[in-house]
Amino acid sequence: MPYTRISLMKGKSAEYLQAVSASLQQALTEEFEVPRTDLFQIFQQLEAHELIFDRHYMGGPGGPRSDDFILFAITAGRVRDTATKQAFYRRLVSLLAAAPGVRPEDVMVVINTTTADEWSFAAGAPLAVPLHPQSEGVST
Amino acid sequence: MPYTRISLMKGKSAEYLQAVSASLQQALTEEFEVPRTDLFQIFQQLEAHELIFDRHYMGGPGGPRSDDFILFAITAGRVRDTATKQAFYRRLVSLLAAAPGVRPEDVMVVINTTTADEWSFAAGAPLAVPLHPQSEGVST
Amino acid sequence: MPYTRISLMKGKSAEYLQAVSASLQQALTEEFEVPRTDLFQIFQQLEAHELIFDRHYMGGPGGPRSDDFILFAITAGRVRDTATKQAFYRRLVSLLAAAPGVRPEDVMVVINTTTADEWSFAAGAPLAVPLHPQSEGVST
Repeated sequence: MPYTRISLMKGKSAEYLQAVSASLQQALTEEFEVPRTDLFQIFQQLEAHELIFDRHYMGGPGGPRSDDFILFAITAGRVRDTATKQAFYRRLVSLLAAAPGVRPEDVMVVINTTTADEWSFAAGAPLAVPLHPQSEGVST
Repeated sequence: MPYTRISLMKGKSAEYLQAVSASLQQALTEEFEVPRTDLFQIFQQLEAHELIFDRHYMGGPGGPRSDDFILFAITAGRVRDTATKQAFYRRLVSLLAAAPGVRPEDVMVVINTTTADEWSFAAGAPLAVPLHPQSEGVST
Repeated sequence: MPYTRISLMKGKSAEYLQAVSASLQQALTEEFEVPRTDLFQIFQQLEAHELIFDRHYMGGPGGPRSDDFILFAITAGRVRDTATKQAFYRRLVSLLAAAPGVRPEDVMVVINTTTADEWSFAAGAPLAVPLHPQSEGVST
């Protein structure tokens, strides 16, 4: 946990996608209480007529959204508090601006929260959830 | 909020997709308390063997589902009451029947509800949620 | 309810996908209280650089994940108890190992739970939810 669906327009290089992937994972690790190897991402590259978005609605101070718009849909395995979410948003935008160079205005994030028992990572095993997850180094 | 993933079989024209997009946005605006410019949609066009669905399960009175089946997966940012959801379903089906001409039997909707602090629309900014969202014209 | 998004790497045959579909539906029917004809699945076939996953994180006892990794993202319409979810995970892995022959280590499942009134299967109709769903043969 979490896993993320990343939707953006077609036309970016593999290197660009790789930098998006790395910046997302770094932001999750640094600000969303996610272990570094807890890495699950699905990229969806879309034609312009398949990715419909308003350029101005609740847009950033730097101007309207561009064709570089990226929507990150994150499914998390437990609730984080609001301050944690907000620090994560800021860190993600900052890292993406550095690499691959996404304008902050083009970054949208939506988190969807599930419960730990809704996850099986492999082999049909339930998640072994400790009583005090953070003290055990387990991310949910 | 919301954003919507729209899954349907490949083969439709860009005009068809545009009409689906417009009818969805109109239904959200008229019956789901969504501002007109709060527009975020992702189309996923699938091969027949990638979109598996039963033609009859809880189907509509007009007959079985056809290859024109569309699944709307809507992620909302706050709870609406049941009556609002039901009015939205009816309006969406009605508008899609008018344009681009989707049979009501082919429209399936699933809503997934998140919280307002799980959204950042741009630039890492948290959503500024007023105490009385409807009176401020802000949709969550 | 439910519907499932199935993400895996490109390159599998239509027969392979069909076997994945059948094993998933059988596991849902046998262990997740889903009617046999309550069948809604979306396959998303991805390039290697579009499906990013750690090979070891919370991996299975049989070894690291391989290129055959499959992520099942299930959206359910009501809460099942933890024991039901766990039995479903085990059954799904077992059935996929038999057909099409997926290693248990390559099966990841995430469930996302909604409410019954968030579903309209067809024609804008709300779901008619009985007071005692299981006694009426209705799955949510």
